[in-house]
Amino acid sequence: MSTILSRIEELGYTLPEAPAPAGSYVNCTRSGNLLFLAGGIPPLTDDTYIGKVPTDTSVEVAQEAARLITLNRLAVVKEEIGDLDKITKIVNVGGFVNSEPDFYQHPAVINGCSDLLVEIFGDKGIHSRTAMGAAALPLNVSVEINMIIEVQ
Amino acid sequence: MSTILSRIEELGYTLPEAPAPAGSYVNCTRSGNLLFLAGGIPPLTDDTYIGKVPTDTSVEVAQEAARLITLNRLAVVKEEIGDLDKITKIVNVGGFVNSEPDFYQHPAVINGCSDLLVEIFGDKGIHSRTAMGAAALPLNVSVEINMIIEVQ
Amino acid sequence: MSTILSRIEELGYTLPEAPAPAGSYVNCTRSGNLLFLAGGIPPLTDDTYIGKVPTDTSVEVAQEAARLITLNRLAVVKEEIGDLDKITKIVNVGGFVNSEPDFYQHPAVINGCSDLLVEIFGDKGIHSRTAMGAAALPLNVSVEINMIIEVQ
Repeated sequence: MSTILSRIEELGYTLPEAPAPAGSYVNCTRSGNLLFLAGGIPPLTDDTYIGKVPTDTSVEVAQEAARLITLNRLAVVKEEIGDLDKITKIVNVGGFVNSEPDFYQHPAVINGCSDLLVEIFGDKGIHSRTAMGAAALPLNVSVEINMIIEVQ
Repeated sequence: MSTILSRIEELGYTLPEAPAPAGSYVNCTRSGNLLFLAGGIPPLTDDTYIGKVPTDTSVEVAQEAARLITLNRLAVVKEEIGDLDKITKIVNVGGFVNSEPDFYQHPAVINGCSDLLVEIFGDKGIHSRTAMGAAALPLNVSVEINMIIEVQ
Repeated sequence: MSTILSRIEELGYTLPEAPAPAGSYVNCTRSGNLLFLAGGIPPLTDDTYIGKVPTDTSVEVAQEAARLITLNRLAVVKEEIGDLDKITKIVNVGGFVNSEPDFYQHPAVINGCSDLLVEIFGDKGIHSRTAMGAAALPLNVSVEINMIIEVQ
């Protein structure tokens, strides 16, 4: 098993199936050594990851959404390049929180993604990031995250 | 005539003049094989493409705005590289909808752009994408779209 | 002294210390010749650069915030590559304004960044850009700006 995949299981997580895109696009494109990942959303099995932070859903649950998006983004990368060990660098993360106008803890929410990336990839997982509050997000999800990832 | 340009006309569209930027920047920069396009806005001849979705303007009209932005972004690329046939890949699209806080169909709006890119470019037009709701957009336009495009 | 650093001082500015990131990320990553800068925020010494535009803070003060972010982003680049003269191109700027839903002058605010980049770098400072209104920003800052910069 690949080093990164066993690291993910060691941390107690499982890679989900790569989710279907929510529109006329694909989850991942490649140009040179860079993968450009589409904005990923959390699983929609119930309304846990739905609504505005912090009124409809808490910071803690939105952090969990960010972690689940991170895992489904990695599932997309695995589908694209076959082996997560080929990732050389998580370059950049864009984190969008479905935000009340007076909510300011977007960094705490997106840390759910950033901390997990570093736990999984170590130094290769350390990325630059932009976190912000969106007025609304597709399907009313609480969090949306895109990434730029460098691969071999 | 270039293949892509005749394809655009075949679909019933015409490339507009590349619009002037709305501030102290340019519509397109290049680094290596990548073009980074500025956030483009729809034509402002009247107030058709102005206001928040869905209260001031409908999903359908916002989709049309997205299509018109796509065409003016391609006009910018043509101005930059001379020939749209030099495009090898639409890499990434960022779609921002001037959104009421309880509007969630941003993907449907930005499909106006994504579907047209695939109609024009076929496989080369299939891109990754992030769609989201902005609290407000420059000049109160209904939609703003940026792109990363790979060229020869 | 490097040409760019003396140009900055000639314009009456001083590079600040590179600020600490507001979460589990770094201010800058590099892939090939591109630097990806995290979303930077203005200094938080008092509440000058806090709140929504234009109710809590004016367009003019938000422009000043954009200028100060630009300087701290350049401080980050200096820390990363040692010498600002190694910058070959400011490729792209993303400007996010903490925006009331009926504020539409985001381009004027982000011009505070764009104009300064061109004053400092001349032709190398001319970039593409996306400006938009966020529903809320981290720590309630008035402006957040990220950049992609090409270096030698």
